[in-house]
Amino acid sequence: MNYDLIVIGSGPGGYVAAIRASQLGMKTAIIEKESLGGICLNWGCIPTKALLKSAQVFEYIKHAADYGINVDVKGEPDFGAVVKRSRGVAEGMSKGVQFLMKKNKIDVIMGFGKLKGKGTVEVTAADGKKAEHTAKHIIVATGGRSRELPNLKQDGKKIIGYRQAMALPQQPKSMVVVGSGAIGIEFAYFYNAMGTKVTVVEFLDNIVPLEDEEVSKALNRTLKKQGINIMTSSTVESVDTSGDLCKVSVKTAKGTETLEAEIVLSAVGVTTNLEGIGLEEAGVKTDKGKVLVDDFYKTNVEGVYAIGDIVKGQALAHVASAEGIICVEKIAGQHVEPLNYNNIPGCTYCSPEVASVGYTEKAAREAGYELKIGRFPFSASGKASAAGAKDGFVKVIFDAKYGEFLGAHMIGNNVTEMIAEVVVARKLETTGHEIIKSVHPHPTMSEAIMEAAAEAYGEVIHL
Amino acid sequence: MNYDLIVIGSGPGGYVAAIRASQLGMKTAIIEKESLGGICLNWGCIPTKALLKSAQVFEYIKHAADYGINVDVKGEPDFGAVVKRSRGVAEGMSKGVQFLMKKNKIDVIMGFGKLKGKGTVEVTAADGKKAEHTAKHIIVATGGRSRELPNLKQDGKKIIGYRQAMALPQQPKSMVVVGSGAIGIEFAYFYNAMGTKVTVVEFLDNIVPLEDEEVSKALNRTLKKQGINIMTSSTVESVDTSGDLCKVSVKTAKGTETLEAEIVLSAVGVTTNLEGIGLEEAGVKTDKGKVLVDDFYKTNVEGVYAIGDIVKGQALAHVASAEGIICVEKIAGQHVEPLNYNNIPGCTYCSPEVASVGYTEKAAREAGYELKIGRFPFSASGKASAAGAKDGFVKVIFDAKYGEFLGAHMIGNNVTEMIAEVVVARKLETTGHEIIKSVHPHPTMSEAIMEAAAEAYGEVIHL
Repeated sequence: MNYDLIVIGSGPGGYVAAIRASQLGMKTAIIEKESLGGICLNWGCIPTKALLKSAQVFEYIKHAADYGINVDVKGEPDFGAVVKRSRGVAEGMSKGVQFLMKKNKIDVIMGFGKLKGKGTVEVTAADGKKAEHTAKHIIVATGGRSRELPNLKQDGKKIIGYRQAMALPQQPKSMVVVGSGAIGIEFAYFYNAMGTKVTVVEFLDNIVPLEDEEVSKALNRTLKKQGINIMTSSTVESVDTSGDLCKVSVKTAKGTETLEAEIVLSAVGVTTNLEGIGLEEAGVKTDKGKVLVDDFYKTNVEGVYAIGDIVKGQALAHVASAEGIICVEKIAGQHVEPLNYNNIPGCTYCSPEVASVGYTEKAAREAGYELKIGRFPFSASGKASAAGAKDGFVKVIFDAKYGEFLGAHMIGNNVTEMIAEVVVARKLETTGHEIIKSVHPHPTMSEAIMEAAAEAYGEVIHL
Repeated sequence: MNYDLIVIGSGPGGYVAAIRASQLGMKTAIIEKESLGGICLNWGCIPTKALLKSAQVFEYIKHAADYGINVDVKGEPDFGAVVKRSRGVAEGMSKGVQFLMKKNKIDVIMGFGKLKGKGTVEVTAADGKKAEHTAKHIIVATGGRSRELPNLKQDGKKIIGYRQAMALPQQPKSMVVVGSGAIGIEFAYFYNAMGTKVTVVEFLDNIVPLEDEEVSKALNRTLKKQGINIMTSSTVESVDTSGDLCKVSVKTAKGTETLEAEIVLSAVGVTTNLEGIGLEEAGVKTDKGKVLVDDFYKTNVEGVYAIGDIVKGQALAHVASAEGIICVEKIAGQHVEPLNYNNIPGCTYCSPEVASVGYTEKAAREAGYELKIGRFPFSASGKASAAGAKDGFVKVIFDAKYGEFLGAHMIGNNVTEMIAEVVVARKLETTGHEIIKSVHPHPTMSEAIMEAAAEAYGEVIHL
C-alpha cells in the first residue's frame, strides 16, 4: 500500500504524530510490533500511575486516623488485585489508541518495521511473513527500552527491569532498586508503601539527580522517613542470584556492603531501539545511540524523520508527542516553531510528588545568570495544612537582570498538576511580577507558586 | 497611638494588606474583634477544606477495593474527631497570622473598630473599654457574614449558618441545605460523604449557578449519583422547628413538598458587615450594602479605603487579599494596575471539584463574542484513568476573532489546582495556540487544558 506517511512505532510519539497527520489530510499508516501505545501506555507512564494511586489509597487508609477517620482496618492490600487493576487501566488505554486510529482512518500494521530503500518500509509480522509499504514520508519512532549494565544483567526473574516490576506475580518482601531517576524512585515508593523492604542504590551524590539539589535532598529525607533505605554515591558491583535471596554487592564510600533482597530492579536509564530497523542500510546518521535530526526532526535522508526517545532531548512521553506534532505539521507545510527543550516539565509521581521545569539553580549559575531565588514551603500553605500535606516546597528561579523565569522546582502533594502553570508562563515569557499579580485561588497549593515568586522579590506575604 | 495605617478587620483582606504595608515601611496596626484571620481562616476556606479532606479520605476507604486494596474496614468515621481536626487546623492558621503580625511588627488591637472623625479609629474592647488610635490611612475590611432570609431565620440549633455547620456537636442523620453556591455544595458533599442524608434546595434552575451551565449540570448528575437529593427551581417557604425534626416546606414547579430533617443549613449567600463601624458618621458613601471605592479602593473620604467583601467584586478571600495589596501599594506610591475582576478564579471543593475563571459560555455570548469552544473529558485522560477519576471535563472558550482566552470551566479531580494555569495564561494575554504548544507533562490531568484548547481549534489528539 502507498501512504503519505508511515510511522514506525506507536508510542506517544508515533501514534500522536499519526493522528495529527491524519487531521492534516495525510493518508497514514502506523507500524507496531507489540501493543498500540508503546511503552508509555502499556509498560510505563500509565500503569505505574495506576500502581501509585493504589499505594496512595493504601497510605490514606494507614493514616486515616490523622484525618479523624477512626475506622478499624484489617488485612493487607491485595497485591494481585493492585497489579490487575493497573494492567486493566493499561489495556483500556491501548484500546483507546486503537479507537483513535480507527476514528482517524489510520491503518495499523502489526509487525516489525524496517527502512528498506527510498520510501519503503518492510514489515515482518509475528508469523515471519514480510510485506512492503511505501510512503512519501517515514517517521521512525521506535523508542527505548530498559538499559542493561554488564554487572546487572536482567534475568527477568530476580534481576528485573521496569516491565517485570510492573507485574510481578507476587509482592516481594525485599527489593533493591538500582538507580534513582523517576522510574527507580516511583517503584521504590510503590513497593515500600505496599510493605516491601526497599533499598535504593544511586551512583551519584543525590537521588533524582536531574532535579534541583534542594529538591533531591528534601525527597531523600522524606523517603527515608517513609522507611526506604537510600544509599547514594554507591555502585552495584555484582549480584549473586544463586541463593534464595540475591546478594547485592554495593561499593560505598565506606567500603563494600552486601545487601540481600528477593528482587533487584535495574532502573539505570533507557537505551534506544535502533537495532535492525534499517538505519544503516538507508544511510541515516546516528551518534551515540541517537538519530541525528534537524529542528523539525528530519534526518539526513530525504523523507525519513525521527522523533521521541531515539533523538536528542529528554526521553519523555510528552516530548515525543510534541516532536511528533511538530514534525508532521512541518511536513504539511505549516508554520511551526522548534521545540524549546528548556521548557519541558519533568515529573516523578512518588508521594510527595516532584515536578520541575527549566534551569536548576546550579545550571542557571553555570549558564552565567545572576539569580533571584524564591522559596515557599507548604508548611505555610493553608490548603496544605487542611489537606495534611505540609511536606515540600516550591522554589522559583528568576534572572535578576531581566526578570526571566528561569526555572521552577517543586516537591509536594499535587505538584505534578501545578507545574503546567510555569510551563505556560515561561512560554508566554512572563516576569516574576506577572506571576505575583495573577490572582491564584485560595486556598490551593498553587498559591505557593505566587508566594515563591513574591519571596524572590521581597514581597512574600505568608512567610 | 499614631500609625501610618490602621486596618479594621483581620481577614484575608485586612491581614494581607497590613503585611504588605509593613513591608513598604508603614507603621501599621490591625483591629480584630474576634480571631485573627477572620472568617476565611477560622470559619471558612480553611476549616471547610480540612473537613472535606477527611470526607475524601473516608471516600477512599469506602472505595478502596476499586484500587485493589481489599482490606476489611469496620466502623463509622468519628465525626467529633473530624471536626476537632478541622478546628485544630483553623487554630494553627490563626496562630500563623499572629506570628506574621509579630514578625512584621504590626500592632494587633483586639476590639471592635469604628471610624471616628478624620484619621481616627475608636476601638471598643471586649470589656467595653474604649481607646482611640489615629492613622494617616485607614482601610476598612470588615468582611461579611451569613445572609439571613426572613423565612429562614437562623436559631443556631436547628436552622444554622456555615459557622455552626462547621462544628456541630454531633453528626445529623439528615440535613436540608438551602442554597447551592460553593458553601452550600461543599457542606452538602461533606455531610453526604460522612453518611448524613442530604437534600439541596436551590431557587435557581441550576446548582452552583455562577458556573457554566454544562458544569452545573454535570455536578448535579454526579452529586445525585453520590446520593444527594437535589431540588432546583425550588424555594423554601417556611420551616417548622417545633417537632423533633424540622419540617421544611418547599415550593417546587410541581407544587409544595414537605421535607423532614434534623438540621436546616441556610447557605443563601453573604451579607456585608457595615453596621456600627462609623461609615455614615464619617460620610463614606455606600450603595446596596457595598462601600463605593475607586479602582484603588479609595472611598469618597480622604484617607479612608475599603477592601474585601464590603466592596464590589467577588466576595472571595483571594480577591480581598489582592485588593489589600493593590490598595496599600497605591498608598505607598507604587505603580499599580487595577485588578481585573474578570480574571478571578472561583473554586468549589466538593468531589469532583469545580473551578473556573472568566466568561461562562452564556456570558461570553451575551457580551457579543463569536466563540471557539473546546472540551476535553477526563474519561479520555490517561492520568484520570490511572487515578480512578474519570468524572468531569475541561471546557475552554476563546474569542473566534482574535483568539483571546475568554474563560475556562472545569469539573474533576484536582481542577482547583489546575485553574491557576489559565489565570496566568489570561494575565499574559495568551492565545489558544500558545496553550496548545505549551508542553504539558504526561500523564497529568492538566493535559486536559491543552487538549481542550486543541479541541477548540480542531487539533485535539485524544478524542
